[in-house]
Amino acid sequence: MHLFKEEVYIKRRNALRSEFKNGILLFIGNQESSFNYPANTYAFRQDSSFLYFFGLDMPNLVGVLDIDQQKDHIFGNDVDMDDIIWMGSQPTMKELGAKVGVENTANLTQLDEFINQTIACGRKIHFLPPYRGEHKLQLTGLLGLQPYKLVNYVSKDLIRAVVKLREIKEAVEIEEIEKAIEIAWEMHTTSIKMAAKPGRVEQEIAGTIEGIALSRGAAVSFPVILSVHGETLHNHHHDNVIEVGQMMVTDAGAETNMHYASDITRTVPVGGKFNDRQKGIYQAVLNANLKAIEAIKPGVEYRIVHFIAAKTLIEGLIEAGVMKGDAQAAVDAEAHTLFMPHGLGHMMGLDVHDLESVGENFVGYDEKTTRSSNFGTAYLRLGKELKPGYVLTVEPGCYFIPALIDQWKSENKLAQFINYDVVETYKDFGGIRIEDDVLVTENGNRVLGKPIPKTIDEIELLMASAI
Amino acid sequence: MHLFKEEVYIKRRNALRSEFKNGILLFIGNQESSFNYPANTYAFRQDSSFLYFFGLDMPNLVGVLDIDQQKDHIFGNDVDMDDIIWMGSQPTMKELGAKVGVENTANLTQLDEFINQTIACGRKIHFLPPYRGEHKLQLTGLLGLQPYKLVNYVSKDLIRAVVKLREIKEAVEIEEIEKAIEIAWEMHTTSIKMAAKPGRVEQEIAGTIEGIALSRGAAVSFPVILSVHGETLHNHHHDNVIEVGQMMVTDAGAETNMHYASDITRTVPVGGKFNDRQKGIYQAVLNANLKAIEAIKPGVEYRIVHFIAAKTLIEGLIEAGVMKGDAQAAVDAEAHTLFMPHGLGHMMGLDVHDLESVGENFVGYDEKTTRSSNFGTAYLRLGKELKPGYVLTVEPGCYFIPALIDQWKSENKLAQFINYDVVETYKDFGGIRIEDDVLVTENGNRVLGKPIPKTIDEIELLMASAI
Repeated sequence: MHLFKEEVYIKRRNALRSEFKNGILLFIGNQESSFNYPANTYAFRQDSSFLYFFGLDMPNLVGVLDIDQQKDHIFGNDVDMDDIIWMGSQPTMKELGAKVGVENTANLTQLDEFINQTIACGRKIHFLPPYRGEHKLQLTGLLGLQPYKLVNYVSKDLIRAVVKLREIKEAVEIEEIEKAIEIAWEMHTTSIKMAAKPGRVEQEIAGTIEGIALSRGAAVSFPVILSVHGETLHNHHHDNVIEVGQMMVTDAGAETNMHYASDITRTVPVGGKFNDRQKGIYQAVLNANLKAIEAIKPGVEYRIVHFIAAKTLIEGLIEAGVMKGDAQAAVDAEAHTLFMPHGLGHMMGLDVHDLESVGENFVGYDEKTTRSSNFGTAYLRLGKELKPGYVLTVEPGCYFIPALIDQWKSENKLAQFINYDVVETYKDFGGIRIEDDVLVTENGNRVLGKPIPKTIDEIELLMASAI
Repeated sequence: MHLFKEEVYIKRRNALRSEFKNGILLFIGNQESSFNYPANTYAFRQDSSFLYFFGLDMPNLVGVLDIDQQKDHIFGNDVDMDDIIWMGSQPTMKELGAKVGVENTANLTQLDEFINQTIACGRKIHFLPPYRGEHKLQLTGLLGLQPYKLVNYVSKDLIRAVVKLREIKEAVEIEEIEKAIEIAWEMHTTSIKMAAKPGRVEQEIAGTIEGIALSRGAAVSFPVILSVHGETLHNHHHDNVIEVGQMMVTDAGAETNMHYASDITRTVPVGGKFNDRQKGIYQAVLNANLKAIEAIKPGVEYRIVHFIAAKTLIEGLIEAGVMKGDAQAAVDAEAHTLFMPHGLGHMMGLDVHDLESVGENFVGYDEKTTRSSNFGTAYLRLGKELKPGYVLTVEPGCYFIPALIDQWKSENKLAQFINYDVVETYKDFGGIRIEDDVLVTENGNRVLGKPIPKTIDEIELLMASAI
């Protein structure tokens, strides 16, 4: 098992405890998830908040911070001989607890008693939103609530306290994230080189880079998006044969063995050479990526950075003849959402969309910054003011989505900004996205990890080396 | 989406329908499984029985065979513009139904109405055991049953009817299984070659071969077992550095894009050369594998084949000095279970342990053959009489499990058959398992797929090519 030093977990729990006056904080670790029958499970993934406060990367554990008693507990069962035969010798719960600074360990039957007593005493039980069926069933059993009613009892205080801690990355966490980007470097340079050879099926490349994530880390941090139809934002099918004239999007990252994420996107021309049309759109997206990064520093709302990227994209699209009119007026009218119907980025850490399980608006917005409900802009997951220690993604894109183009064109929507006749000729273009992972520092920002080829020249050079 | 011709599914549903007089047969397709937050999911895996009868490899579908009305239904929702932007254009439910010969399609709201009406009319609803939390919650919602009570309402008639069909593999299925073994060939020859170089971490090899499964198929058919501590039967940790003197077990298979499985084990000496002690144990296990395969034919109980393998193993262990006495008496006393505390094999098909989700005893045993409750032998998943069309695994093994050896030795258990002093010297040996996938034919059997090096000479030759 991969763990930080026990002090790391003790410090985090102490900081969390200091936010509460009484009650208990209940962290249900993940159970195994079945693939096609109970014993055949997906690779185990521990819950990120459990990992953050209790570190132990194994199923069927529950962590508790008892605020009144000032005691931390881990509940879980010791293994028996059958487990030893099938899964090897395991440390006892006592030993596991000691690794993360928790003295009080007990089995899961004792958890039932503990919870019953807590309920009987009328003490508040704080828990985070469950996101797996097994987790809902476990909470249902423990708390005696109907599964569909659990959502009403989730603790907003606990959500806010957990976000406050987890959103500011510690030095040891930033190191882990850079390791995850190091793995992504290997994945993306491999993918770029493989795209130099037309005729491959996307699956071959997607599988190869997922293999790299598994060889060097715990897993991919999200299902690999790899497609010559990048206009489909989260395309998880990999059946296309890649052909010259297409742009291939690879949006992929790894988890380290400690489960910290990376999330990088590169888009390259199949065969290795950009044509002129591709160069125009690519440079517009790249400029948006670079301008956005330039603008990242503490005190700036990420919403503002999003619109800086949008305006830069529009300027490039005007140059390419796809859009027209005044760039600022176009961005104010959100005319770019035809081409970039998503947000600029999101927090990243133990989750690739960090903390998304507690609710996006608790992570990406606050009292001062409210989420837009407008088409496209509503997908901006992070809008609030930036603080040092945030790690976030910067991922502008430009897509030609035939169904969406047809819809807007039929409504003549924002036609003062869009050359629909030209857009028509781009319907076979696909999409481009360019994404980096950025740390907000005291005075500005730092793009994390070893640079992965990003300019037109860098990409053509790397691809030439693979032909 | 990868599908057989629609006739295949129509024929299967007709055969299933003919086993029932009335009621409805309800097949809940799988939902997405969340990894660390709701939208970040594991790679989707459809339920195998849903795939078998309805073919459609996508989440949130429900299939129904209405026996009284002689009508088949698929319930699922058509996509909207948001789905198109994020996931691409999708065929309508109507079009999807047509691909698998189902005319009646409707949305999931209509499923609620349909089920309510079925309940109101007092018609029987047959369903299979749920094995995912989401599935239990969906059934709870649909049927108005408490989650923990669902198990009481599972249909044994449906289980038996589904097993009767799925256990006999059709020609198109055998073709798919051979494709899955073709991928396993690539995985295992890669693993064997990588083991020629000591100093690697297991994770590097395990990740590489999982990458091969993902490049050429849908996934691994179960989590890769790859370890120099093969004495741990289902070791899913890959943190060891491989060293000369160790045997490395690789138990791994792939799923094709149609989700048919392979399941192969090879065990090789790190560095490429067997030492004498390794040769002795390896040959004993290999002989058990070969003798068992020889015995496979219709009409033979697999329980019997299991004990043929066990006796062959014992003979080899007597030769190596690890066991003693009369081999038949030792197998009758189940003395081999100290070294092979598991069964010889299991059915394989759409699931690597085929149909295990409906309950092992419905698949592996019947009225004539009852499961043993003895240590070790209780793990024999398949005991019943073999029929043409069964595909099963043959996977004898021999393990030196220190904790188990200590337990038996302290009890002086079956000491007339075991040279405990010699066994003591094997505590650092690890384990060996050799597994193939076999089709029961009309007259005997056929080991499926392209042969993967298995004899000592074949393995040493392949490893020499990699040094």
